[in-house]
Amino acid sequence: MSDSHFAEVSQEALLKIFTIPEAPDSTLGKIEKHLSENLMGFLGEHIVAREKPLHEIEQNFNASEIPEQPQYVSDHTEFLLNNLVAHSVHTSSPRFIGHMTSALPYFLLPLAKLMVGLNQNLVKIETSKAFTPLERNVLGMLHHLVYQQDAAFYQRWMHSAQHSLGAMCSGGTVANMTALWVARNLLLKPTTGFAGIASEGLAAGLLHYGYKRLTIMVSERGHYSLGKAADVLGIGRKNLIAVATDENNRIKIDALREACAAVQADGGQVLAIIGVAGTTETGHIDPLDKMADVASEVGAHFHVDAAWGGATLLSNNHRQLLHGIERADSVTIDAHKQMYVPMGAGMVLFRDPSMVRAIEHHAEYIIRHGSKDLGAHTMEGSRPGMAMLVYSALHVMGRRGYELLIDQSLAKAKDFARLIAAQDDFEVVTEPELCILTYRFVPARIKPLLAGLNAEQVRRITPHLNALTRFIQKRQRETGSSFVSRTKLTPAQYHREPTVVFRVVLANPLTTHEMLAEILQEQREIAEQAMSLRGALFTELRELGLVRER
Amino acid sequence: MSDSHFAEVSQEALLKIFTIPEAPDSTLGKIEKHLSENLMGFLGEHIVAREKPLHEIEQNFNASEIPEQPQYVSDHTEFLLNNLVAHSVHTSSPRFIGHMTSALPYFLLPLAKLMVGLNQNLVKIETSKAFTPLERNVLGMLHHLVYQQDAAFYQRWMHSAQHSLGAMCSGGTVANMTALWVARNLLLKPTTGFAGIASEGLAAGLLHYGYKRLTIMVSERGHYSLGKAADVLGIGRKNLIAVATDENNRIKIDALREACAAVQADGGQVLAIIGVAGTTETGHIDPLDKMADVASEVGAHFHVDAAWGGATLLSNNHRQLLHGIERADSVTIDAHKQMYVPMGAGMVLFRDPSMVRAIEHHAEYIIRHGSKDLGAHTMEGSRPGMAMLVYSALHVMGRRGYELLIDQSLAKAKDFARLIAAQDDFEVVTEPELCILTYRFVPARIKPLLAGLNAEQVRRITPHLNALTRFIQKRQRETGSSFVSRTKLTPAQYHREPTVVFRVVLANPLTTHEMLAEILQEQREIAEQAMSLRGALFTELRELGLVRER
Repeated sequence: MSDSHFAEVSQEALLKIFTIPEAPDSTLGKIEKHLSENLMGFLGEHIVAREKPLHEIEQNFNASEIPEQPQYVSDHTEFLLNNLVAHSVHTSSPRFIGHMTSALPYFLLPLAKLMVGLNQNLVKIETSKAFTPLERNVLGMLHHLVYQQDAAFYQRWMHSAQHSLGAMCSGGTVANMTALWVARNLLLKPTTGFAGIASEGLAAGLLHYGYKRLTIMVSERGHYSLGKAADVLGIGRKNLIAVATDENNRIKIDALREACAAVQADGGQVLAIIGVAGTTETGHIDPLDKMADVASEVGAHFHVDAAWGGATLLSNNHRQLLHGIERADSVTIDAHKQMYVPMGAGMVLFRDPSMVRAIEHHAEYIIRHGSKDLGAHTMEGSRPGMAMLVYSALHVMGRRGYELLIDQSLAKAKDFARLIAAQDDFEVVTEPELCILTYRFVPARIKPLLAGLNAEQVRRITPHLNALTRFIQKRQRETGSSFVSRTKLTPAQYHREPTVVFRVVLANPLTTHEMLAEILQEQREIAEQAMSLRGALFTELRELGLVRER
Repeated sequence: MSDSHFAEVSQEALLKIFTIPEAPDSTLGKIEKHLSENLMGFLGEHIVAREKPLHEIEQNFNASEIPEQPQYVSDHTEFLLNNLVAHSVHTSSPRFIGHMTSALPYFLLPLAKLMVGLNQNLVKIETSKAFTPLERNVLGMLHHLVYQQDAAFYQRWMHSAQHSLGAMCSGGTVANMTALWVARNLLLKPTTGFAGIASEGLAAGLLHYGYKRLTIMVSERGHYSLGKAADVLGIGRKNLIAVATDENNRIKIDALREACAAVQADGGQVLAIIGVAGTTETGHIDPLDKMADVASEVGAHFHVDAAWGGATLLSNNHRQLLHGIERADSVTIDAHKQMYVPMGAGMVLFRDPSMVRAIEHHAEYIIRHGSKDLGAHTMEGSRPGMAMLVYSALHVMGRRGYELLIDQSLAKAKDFARLIAAQDDFEVVTEPELCILTYRFVPARIKPLLAGLNAEQVRRITPHLNALTRFIQKRQRETGSSFVSRTKLTPAQYHREPTVVFRVVLANPLTTHEMLAEILQEQREIAEQAMSLRGALFTELRELGLVRER
């Protein structure tokens, strides 16, 4: 069968595309083989290194009408190769250390295809059958990873129709949103004279319970999805209160306690306190145990956003970094981050399996009362069987396999921090606690001066260093052989001056020490070319009397 | 390379799973080949027909701890085949006509694997590059399908950083939720003395604008996700007002107008009016054009939930069924339903590309101001590149290919309705407008009586017929060779008595007339076995004096 299945639009041609696969020697057949045999080779060969400007790429995606006539699969595949794949991002390259999206273990690719081919819909058992208990099993295992209840607990709750140990979500955002939805509905629950917020709405709930407002407390390093959740849930972004952090980007417990007291004194109620484990920008972990104390004091739901850092629990050597997470009412973990599962596998876990009753819903034709349909307790409706990939990854790698990966990532981050610190012209801005760290380039003549600068000097110099960092990051990305990301922090050591930094995430097991050294060298070389930016910096330094001559 | 990559937990073994694929002769390699060459064969061979009780399947998914040790890929794959795949649902079988999940065209499978292998994250350009313009292109094409603006319109807005023609979502639920989120934030927008609901929250917004409550109006056949959305957004489920439908399950315009007037008279504000195109249970389409009039009269956002029926627009022969959809402020369409794309491809489209400003959000390290990052206007954060599969399906099948599929599905539904009506012992309960219809079994002696029954007689007989329908549906599902779903309707012809019906969705192009006849025959044979249910029915009929003897 050639892939010219669709030479004309006919009934017969249509049936063919549902029954006859692409031939092995067709373009798509060859791609599939190449992917199966050598994914890294395929990506390395087909993703072009040098960046094409976005507006040029857009030219290929400008047609506003759906094409009338069918296209040969082979022609279409050629188009995708040249215009999409070629200009996609090599997320699995060991030199692309700027993302939380890393390489995937090979065995997950054929399994992903199997999952897609089965095309189950996890909203109900009728369209998922064994996938439903499998998903409940995955949630149970992750629940155990966090909460470590005994076997009897899981025996009782894991497959209970009226309960859920958590929910699979498309990602961490929906997971965080689901947790706060549950928290909100539990706080404004049904009681005499009030049918509950789910039925009567938020305004009625506040009125009934006599709360002037609800607030959500999180450190100023909290993920931006929490602002979205506050908006969506009707709480309001200004009621998401950003609490100050210490010099290690961890929430200040005193500041948290004070902020909660201020809310309560003003007639508000703290809906939730959110611990971050680890922050997206720096990978630091809040003092979860102490936060749990505060949550308990003020009667707030304690949620931990461990979308990125949660996988650390898989290492017995490092799980104590998240000490206190077991006191959380709910926890977000993304399997598509440090659990090496493809995009689209978020999870929220609930300490108490009956919490989800606060968001339970039913219909006549689906998720009927008493059914075990997963859809009764999820924000989303129809969903794919991503849980299978989490299940397989947990089994094929095992806890000890993950432990090795986690331990190795953390060691690599510490190693890279040492390497950076040892350079004349780079400095670490935030030390790694997990496998994320931030740093920046500073010309060798300036580095020794940095520790002694006063606030005014920092205020004047930082914008120049920021411009330099921005320039290097963009140029390196455009050059295409490696990628670090950037963000803006307010480091304590630099008088909280907004400081642009390189950010790296060292989760790819294929990244080597040598590659990291090369990435620094490339950045150094790019910095050399930034004549005017360096010139402006040194002019400023001269005006401040910090250096004499260029 | 055998698939014993992981005989022991070692650094080296770990690296292997990220670099060396499964061998072609490994278990997983063979599965992949089988999937590629003959998906239907693979599924037919590996999914066991007869249903295993759920509690038995659960036995295989009962471990509450993540396994310590890694497992061989081949062993794990064997486990999945025997315990997961074997007891999954054959969604692509042409005899499984109870779901909106249908067969997939073959070419999407290798493309899905490519998509997974690329592992792009669509939240930002940094992790998706060409996938971002591609996704915007898909949204543009679907926008054009609905709104048919001219080329200049798309030239101007499709790739504009501050605008979006829509949003890709994990599914229709998130799409509906996003539409209502936008509507809510536009209604309670920032104005002098009020920073807007996004910032200040729902209660402050109602207070500022002087609305006692917000309501969402939808027919009583509206999808259950709308109740979830009303809950999540803080509106409250009781403020989702179910408007009466006519004998064809279409919203009554008079009733809608009256319901809106009642809300306004009581100090409330109609946030949104939602048209359904087609209903999940019966496939009927609301009178969209007239609903647009009402929405305009009361100043409400007009949303159309065309998650299922939206694909009908691809057929020039039937798109007029959705006449008025072009007046909607927003429209939901699921590509994983009648567009034959794998699970996880929902979309919401916005008539006005600047509407999404109402939900715009930014962060320091991502979706920065002025960037074209898609994440600025989506409810979800990290997301996979599902848009690619929609793009490919649109190109390889073309509008005319889809037209054929849609036309054929509608013809098949009408054909099946005729076939049912011609039987002595089956009756159509709702006629198909799209490719969904409902029907039930009624013993041949009863069928002639049905039209003449009074309300009391219907009230007494219906529970018995309901029990029979339920029995047949469950038994047929358990037998495993075919599947129809069931729901409960309140048909006008049966005095609105809650009536359980079989529900079929005829979107699989491989379903034949003969298969449909066989499905009826199987149901008839199951009904024969339901001795006690039939006995109870006839006892009731005798007591009512409608039949003499058994």
